[in-house]
Amino acid sequence: MAEYKAPLTDMNFLLYQVFNADKMWQQLPQLNEQVDQETAIAILQECAKIAEQKIDPIARQGDEIGVSFSLDSDGRGKVKTAPGYKEAFDTFVEGGWPALGGDVNYGGMGMPKVVSAFMEEMLCSTDISFALYPILTAGAALSLAKHGSEELKQRYLTKLYSGEWSASMCLTEAHAGSDLGIIQTKAVPQADGSYAITGSKIFITGGEHDLTDNIVHLVLAKLPDAPAGPRGISLFLVPKFNVDENENLAERNNVSCGSIEHKMGIHASATCVMNFDGAQGFLIGELNKGLACMFTMMNFERIGVGIQGMSAGERSYQNALEYAKDRRQGKALDASTKAIKQPDSIMVHGDVRRMLLNMKAFNEGSRALSCYIAKQLDYATFGSGELQQKGDQLSALMTPLAKAFFTDLGFESTVAGQQILGGHGYIREWGQEQLVRDARIAQIYEGTNGIQAMDLLMRKVVASKGALMNVFIEEVTDYIESQQENPAMSEFTAPLSAALADLDDISKLLLTKSVEDINEIGAAANDYLHVFGYTAMAFVWAKMAQVSLSQQDSDAKSSQTEYGAEFYQSKLHTARYYFNRLLPRRLSLLATIKSGSESLFAIEDELF
Amino acid sequence: MAEYKAPLTDMNFLLYQVFNADKMWQQLPQLNEQVDQETAIAILQECAKIAEQKIDPIARQGDEIGVSFSLDSDGRGKVKTAPGYKEAFDTFVEGGWPALGGDVNYGGMGMPKVVSAFMEEMLCSTDISFALYPILTAGAALSLAKHGSEELKQRYLTKLYSGEWSASMCLTEAHAGSDLGIIQTKAVPQADGSYAITGSKIFITGGEHDLTDNIVHLVLAKLPDAPAGPRGISLFLVPKFNVDENENLAERNNVSCGSIEHKMGIHASATCVMNFDGAQGFLIGELNKGLACMFTMMNFERIGVGIQGMSAGERSYQNALEYAKDRRQGKALDASTKAIKQPDSIMVHGDVRRMLLNMKAFNEGSRALSCYIAKQLDYATFGSGELQQKGDQLSALMTPLAKAFFTDLGFESTVAGQQILGGHGYIREWGQEQLVRDARIAQIYEGTNGIQAMDLLMRKVVASKGALMNVFIEEVTDYIESQQENPAMSEFTAPLSAALADLDDISKLLLTKSVEDINEIGAAANDYLHVFGYTAMAFVWAKMAQVSLSQQDSDAKSSQTEYGAEFYQSKLHTARYYFNRLLPRRLSLLATIKSGSESLFAIEDELF
Repeated sequence: MAEYKAPLTDMNFLLYQVFNADKMWQQLPQLNEQVDQETAIAILQECAKIAEQKIDPIARQGDEIGVSFSLDSDGRGKVKTAPGYKEAFDTFVEGGWPALGGDVNYGGMGMPKVVSAFMEEMLCSTDISFALYPILTAGAALSLAKHGSEELKQRYLTKLYSGEWSASMCLTEAHAGSDLGIIQTKAVPQADGSYAITGSKIFITGGEHDLTDNIVHLVLAKLPDAPAGPRGISLFLVPKFNVDENENLAERNNVSCGSIEHKMGIHASATCVMNFDGAQGFLIGELNKGLACMFTMMNFERIGVGIQGMSAGERSYQNALEYAKDRRQGKALDASTKAIKQPDSIMVHGDVRRMLLNMKAFNEGSRALSCYIAKQLDYATFGSGELQQKGDQLSALMTPLAKAFFTDLGFESTVAGQQILGGHGYIREWGQEQLVRDARIAQIYEGTNGIQAMDLLMRKVVASKGALMNVFIEEVTDYIESQQENPAMSEFTAPLSAALADLDDISKLLLTKSVEDINEIGAAANDYLHVFGYTAMAFVWAKMAQVSLSQQDSDAKSSQTEYGAEFYQSKLHTARYYFNRLLPRRLSLLATIKSGSESLFAIEDELF
Repeated sequence: MAEYKAPLTDMNFLLYQVFNADKMWQQLPQLNEQVDQETAIAILQECAKIAEQKIDPIARQGDEIGVSFSLDSDGRGKVKTAPGYKEAFDTFVEGGWPALGGDVNYGGMGMPKVVSAFMEEMLCSTDISFALYPILTAGAALSLAKHGSEELKQRYLTKLYSGEWSASMCLTEAHAGSDLGIIQTKAVPQADGSYAITGSKIFITGGEHDLTDNIVHLVLAKLPDAPAGPRGISLFLVPKFNVDENENLAERNNVSCGSIEHKMGIHASATCVMNFDGAQGFLIGELNKGLACMFTMMNFERIGVGIQGMSAGERSYQNALEYAKDRRQGKALDASTKAIKQPDSIMVHGDVRRMLLNMKAFNEGSRALSCYIAKQLDYATFGSGELQQKGDQLSALMTPLAKAFFTDLGFESTVAGQQILGGHGYIREWGQEQLVRDARIAQIYEGTNGIQAMDLLMRKVVASKGALMNVFIEEVTDYIESQQENPAMSEFTAPLSAALADLDDISKLLLTKSVEDINEIGAAANDYLHVFGYTAMAFVWAKMAQVSLSQQDSDAKSSQTEYGAEFYQSKLHTARYYFNRLLPRRLSLLATIKSGSESLFAIEDELF
């Protein structure tokens, strides 16, 4: 397998040439204090080193050996991580990385999402299993920072940022996967103001492991007298070890790992059954407002899961490209047939190029779109007034898109990379098939991609009567208009404009249809999400093409930029490839949506 | 995981109502002696029992334990199959199944491909790993039956049909995957008329195992003075144990297994490195005509690999359907919100129905199309005159389609089934993720799907100047015309007609373009194969809909058929679903093909 090479050039191109993150930072007082271009470049460079040198080498072994489960002397489950994970985690902690996106008042570094998102990408490209430990912790910390009491934050948040402790999110129960309204875990109020938590949670990533001294579980549970359904859910902090007044670890709390799952992939990530047996818990936020506290985190998590998909796609591309350049098999179609003894590299084959360019266009497009969405999250978090409102709207709209679209494309890219390696792609030692197995989970967890599609179409588009989608459509329309005097851009803006008009039309059609038959929404959701995705990706590809055109034309290009003409040529070629050969995917999806819901719902369940 | 239930009703529907296999058998003298409807129904029923009762139970354990490799006392590699495989294989042999499609002159049962293809489906739906042992043997037997000398056939073919021995196909070498012209294995003529075979082969399915007393390897090798490239390849039979004049096993031949691969899936199938060290081999067919001997087998094998993909899709559908009906999560969009404590089954969700119906339409469509292609193979094998010629042409055209299209759709179906199970689909114990891992190989081996696409477009369509594709187009055109007086069929024949016209147009466009720029073919091949696939599948769905319409309208339906009205209603719904929501996929593919090859080939290799 190729050694991972972090795509720092592309990241900096996006931050400073395409999305002008530096200008945003100057604009927003809170960020202006924490970050500038120089700092961010240095941060990403350091992160690249850790990913390339410390995490990349442990990933294959982590897959083969995985985590192991045993019982301690008290009969409680314990989990041993794979060789090298503890050392890599310690290095990660020593570098201060768990604090990267954290609240500065509790020891965090206060970096914007546009920076931390790229950290997540690099971690996930090298090893999703490893990355999940800090990423889940960061997500939990976010909820705690926003909704926790001052006391909880002083006691726990600081330790999560320091990396001494980690965290887990305990939502799912065996009978209640995506339907959190029916969870059964109980929280009984105690005299001291804490709660006794009892119940069993499944699929808990990092619920137990040997990387940190303590694990802080954020747990959804219901009070005995809570309202039925989602409005009766509260969020609790349940530490593995209690903490005394001096902030030292005290007795073990009544929470333990019952078993771990054996999974298709992410073998080195501990997926735990967690049993709470009257464990002491502390309320986070208000009673019965637990779901709202979780959703604070979810927008950040879900774009993170989207990035996981893209990360695996990036790794797949790097490996497959190296293989394709090396592997000599057959001859080019247009080659002379004489030199039969010297086969060409498989780069000559149209279908190999197709798969490589699909990956390249999807990875770079997803990275650009994730940067755009992260920027909206930063406006929503650190901005004010109109900027904040628009950031809020666009990130709400595009979060389910990022999660589902990037993971679908990422999975496709891992499969494409595997295909390029042929039989070697199917053999474990080459590492390529691991990417397929690891990336697959990202389409499932944090809300399946089907649920994301419903979140987008039902909760965002239909619920806002189209208003949220109109924010996006106006943004892109403005952009297209801004390029009207730029004839070189018309090859991109013309198809973008057509795609945008179709997106607008289909959104309106579905709004109308939803009034008559709400099942039209369920029938259309997945295809609609992808129509939106291909269009949004065309938007960021147009922006990248625009910068590349202008930089390529600049006389002073070599002095202005570190990238060089080849970087921009490659971008332009890939942009053209995207518009010619990937954006047309929306056409079939539009036709399918327009066929309506009848063929899905007319057939009775017994006839399946 | 749901217990496998063989789709016998669908198989009989295809054989006797849609494709009139019984009439074909009566028409062809050689088949008329061997098979009639009653016999074939009994054969498939018996096969279903073995698959459901003997093979299904060993598959999960086979995945977890897999095959294991060790050295025998002489230092030669040996392979132990997983628990239960030997017993299941013995049961399979006792039932006489290895002889099913075999030459009657050597102990075969002489059954047509339309029957043996369904046997393959049932074996593969329960366990692809298990199925590969007999399927590879049957493929090798086919080459031997067609090209082997009388002596070789008497000595070896009879034992392959009896199931006492098995066979392997030794093609691939480490540096020569799809490019067989550059193999290096040598065959040196010996004084006794045999050849000394020396070289190393990789990815040899069933190259070594403990299921049979002897293994017959068919090996591609080159004589020292052979012409360079594919025209210098010969085919040899190399037994693991030599056979004496009394047909008893004699001394061990100089061939042994060096190691086995650790793979993403099909863990219970032994994928071997086979080392030949002056092993005694016997020429099959003529010197330097080895590839032609292999291709005899390949048409049969490749449709078989296509069927593997569909088989996994069928199993995925059965599992996911059972899960979806049982699993209660959330409420239907159109449900009253009052009964909040009783969630609905996830069958109410449009996206779950979409995934189920995708699978159903693909499985039944692939089964129908495989039956149609198998019928063409039977005409090619057992027919004469025009019937044989047309069978030859259509099977040549559609074999790469079957291999690539069915495995692409099959893989999509395994992924969809996994998605329906959510987190449980990612956990090993549920068995669903095994289907994804097992099915994935079918897109890669026996010629990657990219190679199949080139075989279709370059070797079949372009090389025949469109003549082969015209045979198909005429066949479908005639069919559409035959339905002109049938108004109920217009909802199917109208879109079929449009799809066929587009297929015709794009074929002609590519024939024209190929003259100017042969890279247009490489750029279009994959998309073209899928355009053809969706159109061909529409053709068989139209035929299924036609039968279902006529049976449904029949007054005497309950006495005429065992299926019942529900069977036909389900078919009609699924046909409508296919035309509404799956056939439109061709639109994007057509647009992509039309965009041309430039965006694939203009970018230089260094800019990837």
